[in-house]
Formats: sequence, C-alpha cells, structure tokens
Amino acid sequence: MKYVESFREGDRISGVYLCKYKQSAVTKNGKTYENLIMQDKTGTIDSKIWDPNSQGIEDFDALDYVDIMAEVTSFQGTLQLNIKRARRARESEYQAADYLPVSDRDIEVMYRELLEFAEQVQEPHLRMLLQEFFVKDREFIKAFKFHSAAKSVHHSFVGGLLEHTLSVCKLCRYYVEAYPILNRDLLYAAAMCHDIGKVYELSDFPENDYTDEGQLLGHIAMGSEMVGERAHQIPGFPKKLEHELKHCILAHHGELEYGSPKKPALIEAVALNMADNTDAKMETLKEIFKSAGNSQEWLGYNRLFESNIRRSSQYIGLQPNNLQ
Amino acid sequence: MKYVESFREGDRISGVYLCKYKQSAVTKNGKTYENLIMQDKTGTIDSKIWDPNSQGIEDFDALDYVDIMAEVTSFQGTLQLNIKRARRARESEYQAADYLPVSDRDIEVMYRELLEFAEQVQEPHLRMLLQEFFVKDREFIKAFKFHSAAKSVHHSFVGGLLEHTLSVCKLCRYYVEAYPILNRDLLYAAAMCHDIGKVYELSDFPENDYTDEGQLLGHIAMGSEMVGERAHQIPGFPKKLEHELKHCILAHHGELEYGSPKKPALIEAVALNMADNTDAKMETLKEIFKSAGNSQEWLGYNRLFESNIRRSSQYIGLQPNNLQ
Amino acid sequence: MKYVESFREGDRISGVYLCKYKQSAVTKNGKTYENLIMQDKTGTIDSKIWDPNSQGIEDFDALDYVDIMAEVTSFQGTLQLNIKRARRARESEYQAADYLPVSDRDIEVMYRELLEFAEQVQEPHLRMLLQEFFVKDREFIKAFKFHSAAKSVHHSFVGGLLEHTLSVCKLCRYYVEAYPILNRDLLYAAAMCHDIGKVYELSDFPENDYTDEGQLLGHIAMGSEMVGERAHQIPGFPKKLEHELKHCILAHHGELEYGSPKKPALIEAVALNMADNTDAKMETLKEIFKSAGNSQEWLGYNRLFESNIRRSSQYIGLQPNNLQ
Amino acid sequence: MKYVESFREGDRISGVYLCKYKQSAVTKNGKTYENLIMQDKTGTIDSKIWDPNSQGIEDFDALDYVDIMAEVTSFQGTLQLNIKRARRARESEYQAADYLPVSDRDIEVMYRELLEFAEQVQEPHLRMLLQEFFVKDREFIKAFKFHSAAKSVHHSFVGGLLEHTLSVCKLCRYYVEAYPILNRDLLYAAAMCHDIGKVYELSDFPENDYTDEGQLLGHIAMGSEMVGERAHQIPGFPKKLEHELKHCILAHHGELEYGSPKKPALIEAVALNMADNTDAKMETLKEIFKSAGNSQEWLGYNRLFESNIRRSSQYIGLQPNNLQ
Amino acid sequence: MKYVESFREGDRISGVYLCKYKQSAVTKNGKTYENLIMQDKTGTIDSKIWDPNSQGIEDFDALDYVDIMAEVTSFQGTLQLNIKRARRARESEYQAADYLPVSDRDIEVMYRELLEFAEQVQEPHLRMLLQEFFVKDREFIKAFKFHSAAKSVHHSFVGGLLEHTLSVCKLCRYYVEAYPILNRDLLYAAAMCHDIGKVYELSDFPENDYTDEGQLLGHIAMGSEMVGERAHQIPGFPKKLEHELKHCILAHHGELEYGSPKKPALIEAVALNMADNTDAKMETLKEIFKSAGNSQEWLGYNRLFESNIRRSSQYIGLQPNNLQ
Amino acid sequence: MKYVESFREGDRISGVYLCKYKQSAVTKNGKTYENLIMQDKTGTIDSKIWDPNSQGIEDFDALDYVDIMAEVTSFQGTLQLNIKRARRARESEYQAADYLPVSDRDIEVMYRELLEFAEQVQEPHLRMLLQEFFVKDREFIKAFKFHSAAKSVHHSFVGGLLEHTLSVCKLCRYYVEAYPILNRDLLYAAAMCHDIGKVYELSDFPENDYTDEGQLLGHIAMGSEMVGERAHQIPGFPKKLEHELKHCILAHHGELEYGSPKKPALIEAVALNMADNTDAKMETLKEIFKSAGNSQEWLGYNRLFESNIRRSSQYIGLQPNNLQ
Repeated sequence: MKYVESFREGDRISGVYLCKYKQSAVTKNGKTYENLIMQDKTGTIDSKIWDPNSQGIEDFDALDYVDIMAEVTSFQGTLQLNIKRARRARESEYQAADYLPVSDRDIEVMYRELLEFAEQVQEPHLRMLLQEFFVKDREFIKAFKFHSAAKSVHHSFVGGLLEHTLSVCKLCRYYVEAYPILNRDLLYAAAMCHDIGKVYELSDFPENDYTDEGQLLGHIAMGSEMVGERAHQIPGFPKKLEHELKHCILAHHGELEYGSPKKPALIEAVALNMADNTDAKMETLKEIFKSAGNSQEWLGYNRLFESNIRRSSQYIGLQPNNLQ
Repeated sequence: MKYVESFREGDRISGVYLCKYKQSAVTKNGKTYENLIMQDKTGTIDSKIWDPNSQGIEDFDALDYVDIMAEVTSFQGTLQLNIKRARRARESEYQAADYLPVSDRDIEVMYRELLEFAEQVQEPHLRMLLQEFFVKDREFIKAFKFHSAAKSVHHSFVGGLLEHTLSVCKLCRYYVEAYPILNRDLLYAAAMCHDIGKVYELSDFPENDYTDEGQLLGHIAMGSEMVGERAHQIPGFPKKLEHELKHCILAHHGELEYGSPKKPALIEAVALNMADNTDAKMETLKEIFKSAGNSQEWLGYNRLFESNIRRSSQYIGLQPNNLQ
Repeated sequence: MKYVESFREGDRISGVYLCKYKQSAVTKNGKTYENLIMQDKTGTIDSKIWDPNSQGIEDFDALDYVDIMAEVTSFQGTLQLNIKRARRARESEYQAADYLPVSDRDIEVMYRELLEFAEQVQEPHLRMLLQEFFVKDREFIKAFKFHSAAKSVHHSFVGGLLEHTLSVCKLCRYYVEAYPILNRDLLYAAAMCHDIGKVYELSDFPENDYTDEGQLLGHIAMGSEMVGERAHQIPGFPKKLEHELKHCILAHHGELEYGSPKKPALIEAVALNMADNTDAKMETLKEIFKSAGNSQEWLGYNRLFESNIRRSSQYIGLQPNNLQ
Repeated sequence: MKYVESFREGDRISGVYLCKYKQSAVTKNGKTYENLIMQDKTGTIDSKIWDPNSQGIEDFDALDYVDIMAEVTSFQGTLQLNIKRARRARESEYQAADYLPVSDRDIEVMYRELLEFAEQVQEPHLRMLLQEFFVKDREFIKAFKFHSAAKSVHHSFVGGLLEHTLSVCKLCRYYVEAYPILNRDLLYAAAMCHDIGKVYELSDFPENDYTDEGQLLGHIAMGSEMVGERAHQIPGFPKKLEHELKHCILAHHGELEYGSPKKPALIEAVALNMADNTDAKMETLKEIFKSAGNSQEWLGYNRLFESNIRRSSQYIGLQPNNLQ
Repeated sequence: MKYVESFREGDRISGVYLCKYKQSAVTKNGKTYENLIMQDKTGTIDSKIWDPNSQGIEDFDALDYVDIMAEVTSFQGTLQLNIKRARRARESEYQAADYLPVSDRDIEVMYRELLEFAEQVQEPHLRMLLQEFFVKDREFIKAFKFHSAAKSVHHSFVGGLLEHTLSVCKLCRYYVEAYPILNRDLLYAAAMCHDIGKVYELSDFPENDYTDEGQLLGHIAMGSEMVGERAHQIPGFPKKLEHELKHCILAHHGELEYGSPKKPALIEAVALNMADNTDAKMETLKEIFKSAGNSQEWLGYNRLFESNIRRSSQYIGLQPNNLQ
Repeated sequence: MKYVESFREGDRISGVYLCKYKQSAVTKNGKTYENLIMQDKTGTIDSKIWDPNSQGIEDFDALDYVDIMAEVTSFQGTLQLNIKRARRARESEYQAADYLPVSDRDIEVMYRELLEFAEQVQEPHLRMLLQEFFVKDREFIKAFKFHSAAKSVHHSFVGGLLEHTLSVCKLCRYYVEAYPILNRDLLYAAAMCHDIGKVYELSDFPENDYTDEGQLLGHIAMGSEMVGERAHQIPGFPKKLEHELKHCILAHHGELEYGSPKKPALIEAVALNMADNTDAKMETLKEIFKSAGNSQEWLGYNRLFESNIRRSSQYIGLQPNNLQ
C-alpha cells in the first residue's frame, strides 16, 4: 500500500483508502462531480470524481473504505487525487489501523501499565470499582483502548484516551510521592476514571465526532454518573467516598468556565486538575511541533495558549574551557 | 405562645423556642457564658445565658427545641434575651411549623397543583418517570414538600422548593401556550425535576444547610443523575429523550459561570432557564420588599441585582378630566 | 408572480423583484458586469448582468423594484439569475408586501391587541402618554406597525417590532397575575414603550439598516428621551413616575455590557428585562428552526446562545400498557 | 470660629457647626444617647450627646447648622466631641462656605474661564445652545457653580463640578491644538456639557447625595436628554449635529461597563473620554496625596487604581560636576 | 519614478520598487509562477511573474529593491502588475525614503524638539541617563529616529516611534502645567524612555516586524531593563529613583491584561499611561480617516475602539442673525 | 523557653519573644497603653502593656527581640499576655530560628539537592550562569536560603523560597522524563531562577514584607533583569538563549492578569508555569490542612481556590472478602 504522505504529482494510485468526506458539487458548466477527502494514517488528500456516473464508479458513502484507481495531480500548489475507479472494499481487504491516526505507543503495553495503578489502590471499594470498569467490562475496555481523547486539539488518535489517562496517572503517582498529604487511592481512582465519559461523548473511529449525548451532557457529567451507577452496585460502597470520587471527576476542568460544575474543593481534585492540564498542554505542543517538522521558527498564533508558539532552540552541550 | 416579632424590652418570656445557634464564650472577667440565637417563624433574637451552671439551666444543643424562661433586654439598640431557665422540650410540647419560616401558601394545595402538570404529560416514559418521583416515592415526596429552595437568597423556607417548582411550571405553561414550538411534555418534565437535587444538596429543616454531598456535587449534577437512575428502571425509556431531559437539568442555570456544565442547546432548556431565572428574581425582590415593610425608599445595594433596589411608587388611578 | 423559493435551474423568469444589492465588478478578461441580489418575500438569489451596456438593460439602483427577464442557472451548486433585460418598475406594478419578509400574523389584529394593554392602564398620566404615542400620533403608529425589531437576529421582518412588543406585553400580563407585587400600570407602559426608539434606530423597509442616529445614540437612550418629551407635554405628569418609566426603558437590556446605562433597580424593570429576553430567545430559536425545516439534527454554533443548537425530538404520545 | 482640624483634647468649643449625621443609640445600661458627626470645611468629628433630654439640648436634625457648646475628648486614640448644649442656628449666624469642602480656586474666576470656551465656538447652533445653559439659565448656572462632581471619589466639594468641567475643557483645548483633525466646536460643546446631568444626579450641598432621579437614570442619560430638550428649542439646529453632541455625552465614560450605552464612535467622543478620564485620575490622586500630608510612604490599596499608591520621591536638582 | 498610487490599467512601468513579499505558486495547469507584493511609499500592488524562468527575470528575494519592467492589468476590479523583467537594484539606484511609509514631519526637527525635553530635566541622574541614550549613543539614536512605533495599528511608519514619543512628551508637558503635583523630571524621563524597547522589539524597515526577542520579552520588560543597565553605569544613581522610572515604563500600558506586569502606582505612571493612550487613539483615528479620504460615512467596525467609526460632520461657522 | 502554643490561662511567662507589632492606644478613660503582638516559631499572641511608663518597661520597637515578664490572661475566649516588664534582648540571648516560622526540612540538605540540578545542566553558558548565582555569589546564596516565597499565602517561612524552588525543579525533572521534547537545560535553569527576584521583592525576616522596589517592579521583571545582568557578564552567552531564559521567567505566572507581561510561548515556559502552579497549590492546601489539625470538616471559603475546602476522608485499606 502506498501511503498518502508519499504521493507525488503524476503517481498512479491503486489501493484501499478511507473516505473521510463526500459531497456532490456542480461545475460552472453545470456538471455534477464529487468532492472527497481520502485518508490513511499518514494523512489526507483532497480528491475528485469528475464523472460520478461513469461505469467504474460504484456507490459508496463517507466513512467507507474504498478501493480506488486514481492519478495524483496538482492544483494551486496542492496535491489532489483524480479518481477514475472506485469500489467499496470488503472488510478483509484492509486493516483499520492503516487508515487512522494511532498512538505511537503499543496499546496493550499501555493498558497493562494502567492496570498497575488499579492494583495499587488499597481501599477495597475503589479497587472493586476500578475492576468493574477496567478488568471486567469487556465492551468498555475495548472502547476505552481504541478511543481518542478529543475530536481534535490533542490525543485525537486511536489510543489517545488511554495514552492521556496513563500520562495523568503517572503524573499523579509523582504527586503522591512529592506531596504525601494526598490520598493515593482516591487520586488514582479519580485519574483512571476522569475521562471515561469520553467513551460515549465521542463516537468510535473512524468517525470520532461528538455524539448527540456528548453534546447534550458532556463527558464530565457522563463520567460522574457512570461512576455513580457502578458504585451503587458495590455493596457497602461508602457514600462519602462515592461523592469524593465524583467530585474529582466533576471538578477536573478546574474552572466553571471550562465546564466543571464545581471548582475543586479537595486536594485530590486540585491535583487531578493540574495533572490533566499539564498533560493536555504538553501533548498539544508536542503535536504542534511534530507537524511543524524541525522548524524553530515561530509557528503562529495558537488559541489554546493565546500566544504565538515557537520551539526552543537547541544548543550543543560542550563545556567551554572556562567552566573547568 | 408569644412570637419573637412581638417581644418588647422588659417582657418576661416563657415558652418553647428553637435554638438555632449555641456557642460558649468568656467575659473580660473570665466568666463563661453562652451565646445563643433563639428562633420562631416570626424571627430570631440574640440570647445569653450568663450563668450556664446555675440550677435552672439544663443541657441542650443547637437545633433543639428548648423551653425557656427569660427577660427581654436591650443592648446597643437591639433586643436580647437574658435566659434564666432552659430545658429541652419534648416533641409533644411544640409544633415545628411555629418555629420555621414557612410558605404563605398551603403545601398540600400547591402539591396537588404540581401533580396536574405531571398529568398533562402525554409521553408515556416521561409520565412514568414523574410518577416514580412525585406519586410513588413517599420519602422523596415528603422531603420535596418540606424543603427550602435555598439556604438563603430566595425561597429559603419550608415549602420553598415546592413553591418555586410550581411557579416555574406555571411560567412554562404560559410559554407553551405562547410559543407552540415548545415540546410541552419535555418542558413540564424538566420544570418539575429541575431542582430535585436540592432535596439532598440542602439538609432538612431546621438545619437547612449545605450537605457534604451538596457541596461536593451540587444539585445540578445530582438532579441529572437522579433522573438517569429512574429512567434506567423504566423499560424502553428512549435514550435520546433521557439525554434531552438531563440536558435541560444540567443547563438550567444558563451559563457555565453559574455552575451549568452545558449551555442550553434545546429550546426547552432555554425556556426552563428563563422560567427559573424569572421566578428567582421576582421572589427575591418580593422577599426584600416584604422585609422592608412599606418603605418606598432605596433599600441599599443587592449583590444578586448588582444595583441599589427600590420599590416603585404607587399612584391612585383616578382619571383626570382631560382624559375624557 | 413566480416566487424565488420555487426557482429551478433552467427556468425563465419574467416579473418584478426587489434589488437588495448592486455592485459593479470586472471579469478576469477585463469585462465589466453587475453583481446583484434580487429578493422577494420568499428569499433572495444571487444575480448577474453580464452585459450591463446592452440595450435591454436600463439604469436602476439598489432598493429599486425592477422588472426583469432572466434565466435561472446553477454555479457551484447554487442557483443564480442571469438577467437579460431590466427596467425600474412603477409603483403600480408591484405590492411591497410581496417582496419583504413579513410577520405571519395580521398586523391590524396585533395592533388592536396591543391597544388593549394601554386601555388597562389606570394611572391617568401613563394612560395619556400611551395614547399620545399609540392612538394619536399617526406617523409614529404607521412606522411602529411596519418596522422590524432588528436588522437581523430576530423579528427582522415587517411587523416584527409590533409582534415583539405584543409578546413582551403578554408575558408581562402573565407576570402581573403571577406576581401581584408588580405595578401593572408601570409595567404595561414600560413594555409598550421599551423598544419605541427602534422606529428611528433602524430605517424603514426595504432598507432596514441602522440609521446614523441609531448608531450614535442607540434605541435605549432614544426611547427614554422620546418618553421624556411626551411626558413633559402632559400636565402634571409626576416626575417620579416619569423617572421610573424611563428607568425601565434604560435598564431593559439588563446588563451594562448589553448597552443599558443602568442595571434594573425596580422590580418592573427586572420583569421587563426578563420578558424582553425571553421573547427574543424564543423567537430567535423559532426562526432558526423554521429555516432548518424539519431537521432534528444539530444546527451548528449560534453566537447568541454560545452553543450548538438542536431541535428537541418528537415522540408520539401513546400510552404503553405498563402505564395502566 | 475654631476649625475642626485645630481641635485638641481638652478644648472647650463654642460655635456653629454643620450636623452631617444624627442617630439615636442605647448604652449597655439602657440609656439613650445621640451619635452625631459634626463638620466644617476642615474636617469632621464624631460627637455624642450623652443626655439628649437635658435642658440645654434643643431639637435639630441632620444637615442643620447647630450652635453648640462642647468638650473635646479622646476615645481609643480618636478625638470626639462631648456636646453639652445645642441649638439650631439661624441663617444669619453662619456662612455655608465655612462648613463645606470647597474648591481652592475662586468660583467666579473659573466660571469666566469656562465661558471663554463657549465664546470660541463658531458653529452658531452649538454656540446658542451653550448660551442657553451657561449664560441665560440662572437657575442652572447657580446650581452648576456650586455643585460637586461626585458624592465622593474626586471633586466632591463645592465648585467641584465647575473645576472638573473647566479642566476637561482645557485638556480639550490642548488636544485641539495637538490634533487639528478634531472638530473644535463639537469638542468644546461636548466638554462643557458632558457632566451637566450631575446637577440633578446629585442633590445640592450640604446633602450632596444621589437623588432618586440620579439613581434611576444616571447623569449620562440625563445630560443627553437635557441637551436634546434645548436643541429642539433652537430653530434649525441640525439633527446630525445634535446626535453627534449627544453621542459624545452618552459615550464619555468610554466603556459599556462604566455606564456609557455607546462606545465612542467619533474622534471627539474619544477625546472627551480621555480628557474626562485624565482629569478624574489626576484629581483623585491629588486628593489622596493631600489627605496623606507629606508622607512618601505607601498609602494602601486604592480601588479606582486597583493598586497600592505612593507619592514619588523628590530629589534636589543640583547638577553634579560630571554633567558639565 | 512613477508612484504606485498613480498606476492606471494599461500603464507600462519601468523603475525600482521594493519587493515586500514573494512566494512561488502553481497554476491549475501545473505551471510555476511568482506571487509578489511590490511597494513604494504611496502604496502596494499585487504583482505576478508568470514565467519566472524567462531570461529577463533575475533572482531576488523579498525585501530586495528590484528594478522592474511591467504592465498594469486589472483582475476582479483590482490593479495588478504583470512583471516581464526584474533585476535586483544597486544601493545607488534608489532612495529608501521613496519606498517606505514615512512621517509627515521632518525627523531632525522632531528630534531637536525631543531633546529640549531632556534639557528641562533638572535631576542630574535622570538628565545624564537621557543623555546617554538620546545624545551619546549614536547607534541607538539612529535606530530610534527611523523606527516605527508599531507593526501596524498606529505610527507604523519611518519616524513613527519618534513622532509618538514626542507627542507623549508634549502631552506630559501640558499635564505638568495643569497638575503641578506631578514630578516633571520623572515624568519627562519616563515619557522619553517609555517605548525605547521598541527599537529592538521591532526589526528595522523595510521589514518592520516583531523580532524573536520582541515576541519573547516585549518592549515593556526590554525598555525597563535597558534603563536599568544605563542607570547602573551612572555613579550615584539613586536606587529609589531608578525603581520609580522603571515602574513608569513597566506600568505604562495601564492594565495587566494589556501586558503591564504592574498597574500604575505613582501619579507619574498614571499620567504617562494617559498620555500614551491618548496619543495612540488620536493617531489611530487620524490614520483611519486619512485612508478614508473625505468620507463622512460610517467606516466599519474597528477592533481597537470596539465600535463602528465615523468622522464628525463639518459645519460652516456663519453666525445666524438670531445670535446677535 | 516556653513556646506560645503551650501557653495556658494563668501562666506566668519569663523569656525572650519577638515583637511582631507595636502600637499605642488609649482606653476609654484616656489612659495610654500598648497593643503588641509577641511571636515565636509556634505562633503569636496578642499582648498588652497597660502601664507603658512603669519602671520595668524599657523602650523597644516592633521587630525587636524582647525579654519579658508577663501573665497569660483570657479575653473573650482568646489568650492574651499582660506584660509587666520588658527589655530589649541582646543578640546572644536568643536564636532567631526559635522565633520565626521555618521550613520543616533542613536548609543545607535542600540547598545541596538544588545544586544537583545545576550540575545536570550541560549547556555551558546556562551552567555558568547558575554557578554565578548559586555557587559564587555568597550574599545572594545566604539571602536565597533564608527567604520566604511569599508574604503570606504559601511558603511564607524561613527557607520557603528554597523549598518551593526545589519542589519546582523536581516537578520539572519529572516532566523532562515524561515529555522528552522538553529542553532539560533550559527548563532546569528557568526553574532555579524563576523566583530569584523574590530575594529583593520581599524584605528579610523577621519583617518579610514587600519592599519599595518589590511593589514598584515585582519579582517577575526583577528576576528577568537579574538574569540579563549576569548573562551579559558571561562571554559568548547566546542572545537567543538569554531571551528564552528570560521569557520563561517573565511568563511563569501563565496569564497577563497574574502579572506576567507575556503568555508562555515556549514549551519550557508552559512547563515551568505548570510546575510553579502545582507546587503553590499543593503547599497552600498542605498549610491550610496543617493549621486545621485533624479536622475533616469543611474549612470555609478560600480565595485562591474560589471554593470551600475540605480534607478528603481516610479509609482503612482492608480488603473485603469479595475482592479475593
């Protein structure tokens, strides 16, 4: 399979690609054509079917995997696919992992690391709650592993939710060591569960868009309720502990303006907010820098940071003589 | 029983009053005494027990009903009770309704009016949900009827939650008639349920203070989850409808800064927010004016309205001759 | 007359349409042509005159009614008029009501309903003031009836100002019944007058744009001054009452940031603000939903509501068996 | 007459002072006494009448001028008047100017300077408008001359409104010279009229408090309407010019949050806002420094400046040798 | 030399112009061409080199001065240069002043005026500090004279920094006369130095863009540090005075949100903030009006003023008879 | 020495205590007395000298160490010292560490840990810069070690600046491991230097209050300039690197509203902001909880967190049987 990032003007392409977007349009001359975006895990390319009614063009929809024959052309300095033949592919003809942005890290390895946090939780009810979600609920586990943590912004790739959750847990482990006043069991449980609502706030890949429920309720209220439901099924789950855990989830965005209905009132909620915020910012910048290649130039204004952004300069670490 | 509002300097008082507050203190001379606030439904009065160890003073706690003998004195222009004897009263010796601020309206009459809204809901799952709460759940019904709608601010009296909920429902009934685009069933259900979380956010009278759960979670998330729990027990409750109802509850404060994790996205959520806001403001001003008596003077700065407040002037509606 | 909403590609059109916009442009080849927007009450259509100097094209301006011969074409999926002949129409050749967006409700019926509010006002000076504007001032009455309530956003159609004012009055009537503490006379007078400044803030249809005065002063200060002018002509108009009425107008946007120079300090000003806000939001959503047809999909981000918007779902109200 | 600023512990005082405040209170022992604040132009002093029913104490009210006999005592480090005799003074017995804070500058001199600005206005309608207010309207002139520009904050003394208006005019004269693009006539007229609403927003001295009208409407809307009323009486006053002048008044606070219903849209409105702001800030600091004596210490937090404030240090300007 | 503002369609141009921007692009047909912006002091014009490889086209870069032969064409109503020949010009072939926007006022005259402020400063250390920058440091002086005060917004022309600094000094001179409480020496020194950081925050013309240092540190912190460095080299410079001067620079934007790390705490810092703000606003409007020609129409929304903007109307100042 | 925290009513005290505050006052009866606050490292106690002129009372000032004889009394439930004799103590009579709040951790141990971060910096100029401050500058080192990190809020004890800086460095070490994209050398240098301006923003203990320089400039601009001064003394220090380091210091408060003149634009500046924020919040809560003892009750509203605060509950970690 030839990846999108390696397309060059004049190439002839033959293979299966994911159709991310599909919309009919009309030329100035009144001819109907199709605007498409084709995708694999290395990128996307604007594509056209200039003659949708020709024999080689079979019917398909957005989010289908499509076997195409096409030519790479250039329009206003940007590459474009001119698709001549198209046929919906069978499931056996492609592997989804080739077509979707995916975590750099091995998902199973990350998941095992995540479970270690659950195992360090001593409080029996919290421990059981984590097992209900992360050990016993196969459907949840499968969705959690392959979900993104966002539609865009950061961690918007397969495994992104897992990678982000694991990073937050590790930050919390550092906090617990540095600030022993923290309640480790509560913080670990909160870190593992803080974004579980995203499993239903965002649809699965390849769509990865806000669901109706997600838009109406948001992952914060959804996650808190999910925790409540499971806690009610665990005999003797202390009410106070349930409220503390839900508080950490409800407050993890830190500010009412960011969608948390409560400001953090427990030190564990404060810590979770800091860990979530730190990982989101580090990962966002990492993704910005990655897409900017090696450039050390200013990369333009970024809304999240309300600033122009630039990578810091790199200096070779030789010791000058006068440092002896 | 002599009510607090009728106390005059020099009166000798004998009867049962609610002790709202109790704290030991020490005079300059090193003598211990008790600072108390005694209350009935007409008001509160600062009170002292200057000799807590004297024979007539038995042990009691804040929020106890206490049978006292006392004298009304005046200190720096304010009346004060000098308590000489005190004894915890038996349940048969008082009626709670005499000691707590209470709605002007009959609670049972209001409750019947509220149920009429539930009966107008045609959509069967919403209808059943309302019955689960407001018809079948005796514990919930009892708490709902006697709860306040706030610790202070507005409707902070017995029956206040019911009175506010009923007013909001009636405003929504007007909206439904004026704006037929509104989904009546959804709006009525949302109006009835919008503050049910307050039953657990605030403790029962006479305490009427934020609970631990209330401070950690808030009535908005609590109410949404309560609806979710009941909906899951009703067979075939449409998921989309459940999300819409929960959205209305989550969004009913209208702004993220006011603790709603979502801004209203459905017209019914917008309408509920307007009804809630309108009734809260009207009732707050009504209570301010009531406590100001007949004064038409400026009543000072009010934080909710971010303005000085005054009652409008009243003119007699005689028709002058030149209006003929 | 063939309405714009029924145009189909290939149609040949002949009739009078309102020219909303007209601007000369130049093709890549250096030829001059005219960009136009033609309008009737059912919609607008981009139009071109490719040869402005040809014999059949007479001179006309934006906001003229023009008798055209044209062909409906399609460009990039959107319909377009290719105008071959054009001639400014005489007044006898068209009826303005066919060309402008207009209230669904009968203007005279609404106006009579509005006058009923004036008749319920008992305080003689307020009553006389309302008669000065709404009964005696023919020029004002004519303008008020046919004005919009906005350039866009909501009620931006002929009769919109009247329709909005009437809705606000009706909400106030409900408030007066529900909250007897409200001063009915003051509130009705304020509701009727709250937006009278818009008669001069916005120009008449078909232009319906901000006037110079409107941009410099705004309808809030303008309306308050208009009330002052009339009140000064009514013998014995109580100064305090004049100030209260003007305050309601000045404060009706509710917040300084929304252009009110004073926050509401009277309960009637608070009520007017709630009524204005409620009707504006309901009507805005009604118009959004209307233009979205029957779609129950998410309708994208709306700036007024700071949220994505969606119509709530409709369920058939059959009673399931288990509700017996 | 002995001024308040020269009172020393032990002094016996006999003379007329203004009673700024009067309120009955009760001692711990149940005795009634009077809390007063007595004032002259040099300051105020807390005062007590310990025996209001004694023979020498006649009846008087707050804001009366009172002839007293009293002793200066000290309580918790602060001086206090112990009043033994008190009698309402006759008008002939005092001169108001001795009792009220008053501008350092001669009011008549300032007023003549102000009129020079009116004389430089060439545009005949603006010129006539200024004459209507500042030359012909005796009642207005008298009030304008003796009014303060604020209840507190800055220029809260007799002549303060005049002094502030004159300073603003002078700043505008500088602007007109420095930025010839400014329309001198419009700017001078706007500067002279910008705060005329304060004549009725604040009551006369000695009360100097917000009036009912002032609280309901504010000096911004009031001043704009006052200008409108006069302009309508001047034949041929250009509408556009009236709107521009009113705009400058409406916009002179510069921001909606500061009570201007419109942001400045004309350069003259921007200039007026800067002049008003500059003079207000300079005068406020001047008054703070004056009341702080020669202290060059930090003077604590000031809300207007949202900062701690300190006077800058003074250095003797000797030229060191190395500057030759 | 033919200036850009006088170009007409069909003109043939031959001369040296500054290339402000240069970027390669590809036509639909896959041919490479160059998009350029050419500039002189009267304006800019979009330009194309359709055949970059033709013999007459030599290599050059953005910000080079280029000797071109070209034809003026029109595309979509806008003029465009079609460049046929191009050659990098030698320094002797052009004068930079012809190609850059430049102050209307003579730079040397303005600089001498500025130095007069330094000469009025009596405090010897401040005086010496100003001499270090504005009299002795040739490199600084040269840069200061030819710098702009901004990338865009206002004073974004050669000499703009000097012109703005001089205007601010003059405003401060007026303030010192009007408010004698101001410390003249400190205020003049602060006014002269307030924007010196811009010499390094923005690169020299023709680039005139934010430098790396400028983006990272900003002219406020940079200017404060520059003052600190010089002050440390002047023997006996009083520490307190150094801190006061740096405070004025740090606080001159007036609000933390505008990038000042401290709010003004000294009256001189307040005055400097007002002077800077006043000149920036007046100059911005002057430039807006200048580019709008004689139009007295509304000029659209301006972000700095958060309002639509219009020039005020001009009336002929004839005295009507009734003013006699 | 008897510590303040162990004082009981009736105790007779004899020893050296630090006088934190001293102010003369006058009793109702006109007698002068002294209000004092005496302090040791375990707390403070209100104190009185009722007869300042008695023989045993020698002269002393606030911030003196004073040898006193006194009696512990109780007033309104609070302990108070009644001082009978007082004499300024000689330096040999006390050890400052007994009287000031001091870090729980050993200062020299912490300092050695801090130096390890400097040793891991490879880039030679940054390394040399850190050595200039933290290894070679004895005065700086001494001040840095014994400074607080704040006047109040958090780390307001001897060694607080060091303890906070070390915690921030350790968080940064964790970040560098977790997010390898971070430039370790730049981040460590920035972390070590981020609060060095506090050495001069706050005065030394026992005063520990804002200095004049601190109020005028703030530790952010001061720290950046301190780094600039040293960097300029190191031959070949790369300009770009200096700007990056200063940027990290200038931006470390994260928001303009919090006094940073620039928002973080480099990932190291973002990381430093998160580390500073995290440690400040954790330490603040730690100190709140410490002063609240073992209470798990709600501890009231905290301005920093804009929320009521409570410690989370502690559960014993026994494994229930059903977890096997």
